[in-house]
Amino acid sequence: MQRAGNEVRKPRIALAIGDPAGIGPELAARMAADPQVNEAVSLTIVGDGRVLERGAREAGIDLFLGRPGGPRFHDLANLDPGTTRLGVAAEAGGRSALANFRTCLEMAEGGEADAVCFTPFNKAAMKLADPSYEDEISFALRILGLPGPASEFNVLDGLWNARVTSHVPLSKVAGLITEASVLRGIRLTDASMRAAGFGEPRIAVAALNPHAGDGGNFGHEDDEVIRPAVEAAQRAGIHAEGPFPSDTVFLRATKGSYDAVLTMYHDQGQIAMKLLGFERGVTLLGGFPFPICTPAHGSAYDIAGQGVAHPGATRNALLLAARIAAARRDAV
Amino acid sequence: MQRAGNEVRKPRIALAIGDPAGIGPELAARMAADPQVNEAVSLTIVGDGRVLERGAREAGIDLFLGRPGGPRFHDLANLDPGTTRLGVAAEAGGRSALANFRTCLEMAEGGEADAVCFTPFNKAAMKLADPSYEDEISFALRILGLPGPASEFNVLDGLWNARVTSHVPLSKVAGLITEASVLRGIRLTDASMRAAGFGEPRIAVAALNPHAGDGGNFGHEDDEVIRPAVEAAQRAGIHAEGPFPSDTVFLRATKGSYDAVLTMYHDQGQIAMKLLGFERGVTLLGGFPFPICTPAHGSAYDIAGQGVAHPGATRNALLLAARIAAARRDAV
Repeated sequence: MQRAGNEVRKPRIALAIGDPAGIGPELAARMAADPQVNEAVSLTIVGDGRVLERGAREAGIDLFLGRPGGPRFHDLANLDPGTTRLGVAAEAGGRSALANFRTCLEMAEGGEADAVCFTPFNKAAMKLADPSYEDEISFALRILGLPGPASEFNVLDGLWNARVTSHVPLSKVAGLITEASVLRGIRLTDASMRAAGFGEPRIAVAALNPHAGDGGNFGHEDDEVIRPAVEAAQRAGIHAEGPFPSDTVFLRATKGSYDAVLTMYHDQGQIAMKLLGFERGVTLLGGFPFPICTPAHGSAYDIAGQGVAHPGATRNALLLAARIAAARRDAV
Repeated sequence: MQRAGNEVRKPRIALAIGDPAGIGPELAARMAADPQVNEAVSLTIVGDGRVLERGAREAGIDLFLGRPGGPRFHDLANLDPGTTRLGVAAEAGGRSALANFRTCLEMAEGGEADAVCFTPFNKAAMKLADPSYEDEISFALRILGLPGPASEFNVLDGLWNARVTSHVPLSKVAGLITEASVLRGIRLTDASMRAAGFGEPRIAVAALNPHAGDGGNFGHEDDEVIRPAVEAAQRAGIHAEGPFPSDTVFLRATKGSYDAVLTMYHDQGQIAMKLLGFERGVTLLGGFPFPICTPAHGSAYDIAGQGVAHPGATRNALLLAARIAAARRDAV
C-alpha cells in the first residue's frame, strides 16, 4: 500500500445519497457513524445536507462531520426534504440521486476518490427525472465516456455471480449466447476478481439448457457454444470450468469449489442468490477504472423514515469497495 | 376412510425396485423394514427376490416378508444380481427396472394397488433397454393407454412445484408458454393437490421474464399471456396468483403464503428446489388415476452397495403416495 509518512492511506470513498423517499438518507447517516467503516475508509458523503440530517434523525445518531480523520460531507444543496413524500417515487428525488451519483463518479474520475458507493436508488424516480435512464451501468458509462463492456456482479459471503445477459426477454437469451459473449463474460469476471485481489479466481460457468442439454437432447448451445468458450478461456490461463447444469452449479460453488458463478441469464443467478440471502449482499459494477458498489437491496419504501433500516449490506458495499480500491492501488 | 369391520384399511402401495446397479435394492429393503412405512402402508415390493436379498444384506437388515400385516413381495425373478456390476448402467438392469415399474402400474390399473412407488431408476440403463424410453411419465401414459396431460411435481416439506415446460431447450420455452399451456398447468396443479387432500391449494405462478417483464420492457408474455391465464383460473374458482418475478416467488412461497409454485421452465424451479434441499424431497407424477411417487434423488452409483443410502426421501415418497391414495378414497 502507499504510505503517507508512516501511515497507510485509507481508500477514499465517495458515497452518494440515494433516493430520498426511501431508506437511502438513513443508511448514509449510519455509515458516517459506523466505526468499522471509519476504521477502513476515508468517507465523503455527497448529497443535500438537510436530507442527510433527516437520515441522521431517523437513525437516532449524531453526525459530527468534518472532524480530522472522520467522514466528510460534500453538500450539493439540491433537495429540500420538506418537499419529499416518504415512500413515493418523485422526479425531484430522482434528479437529486442522479446528481449525487454523477458527482461521485466525477470525483473518482478526477482522482479525488478511489471508489464510488451509493445507497439505494429508486428506478421509477430516476426515470421520472431522466426518461432515457436505463440502469446504473449505462449511466456511469455515459458520464465517464467509456465504451464498456461493463457488467453487474452480485457478491454474497465471498461468492461472486455475474451474467452474460441480463435485462432482456427470456425469448432473446439463447440468441445472445455466443462463444464471444460467453468468453467476454468469463474474461470480465476474471479481470474484475483479479482487480479485487483474487490471485486466480475459480469460475464455474452455468449451462443454458436443462441438464446442460443432456448430450444434445435438450439443446446444443452447451456443447457447441459454451464449452468452446470455456476451453478458450482455459487456454488463456483463466481458471474457468463448465458448463455445469444450472440447478446444481450454486450447490457446487457454495461448497467452496468456486469463487464465482457465471450465469447465462438474469433469473438463473438471481433465483439462487436471493435464496442464499443476497439481500444481505453487495452489487458491484465491474469494468470501470474504479469500483462502484451498492447494497443489493432496494430503497425499501415500506420502511422509509422508521429508523429500522439494516446497515449490514451497505457496510459490506463500502468495505468491498475499499478492499478492491486497495488491491488496485497495490497492483499499480 | 373406508373401514373393513372396525379397521381402516391401509393404502396398498406397489413399490418397484429401481436400477439394480445403484441404491434402489437397498432402499427397497429398508422400506420393507421401516416401522413408519409399515404403520401407514400395506406394501408390496415388486422385483427380483435375489436383488432384494442383496439390498437387505447391504442395508444389514432381515426382511421377514409375507408375515400377516407385514410387507409382501412379488417376485418377477427377472435379474440375477450376479450379472450386475455396481455403479455401471446396463441393459439388463434397465430392462428389469422397466418390468418392475410396468408390473406395479398394471397392479394399480387392475385395482390390486392404490398407488405406485419406485426406488431410483437410471435413465441411461432404461435407454439401453428401450431406446424409445423418454421418461417415467411418457412410459406410464403408454402402459396405461392414457392421453395425458400428466406432469411432474416436486414436493419438499409441504411445498409443491410444477412446471409448464420441462425437458426442452431454453430457446423453445417462450414459444411454448401460451395462455392454454399455462392454464392447463394451473388446472393440473390444482386438481392434483385437491386429490392429495388440499382443500383450496394456493398456487403462485412464476413470471417468464426478469422482473416479470418490468411493464413490458423485458418481454410481453407476463402481461399478455401468463396474467390472462391466471385470471381465467381465478374465474374458474382456483386460488392462483401471479405472475410473480421468479427470483422472489420461492421466497414468498417458503414464507408460507403459497402451497405450490408453478414455474415456466425446468431450471426456474429446479434451481430453487435444489437449493432448498430437494434431494430430501419427493417427485410425484400427477395426472394419473392413482399417485406415482419416487424419491427426488437419483440412483447414486457412487455409493451403491455400501449400505449408507439415506431412506428419508423414499420413506417420504411412500407416505405421500399413501396420503394421496387415502384422500382419493375418501373423496369417492
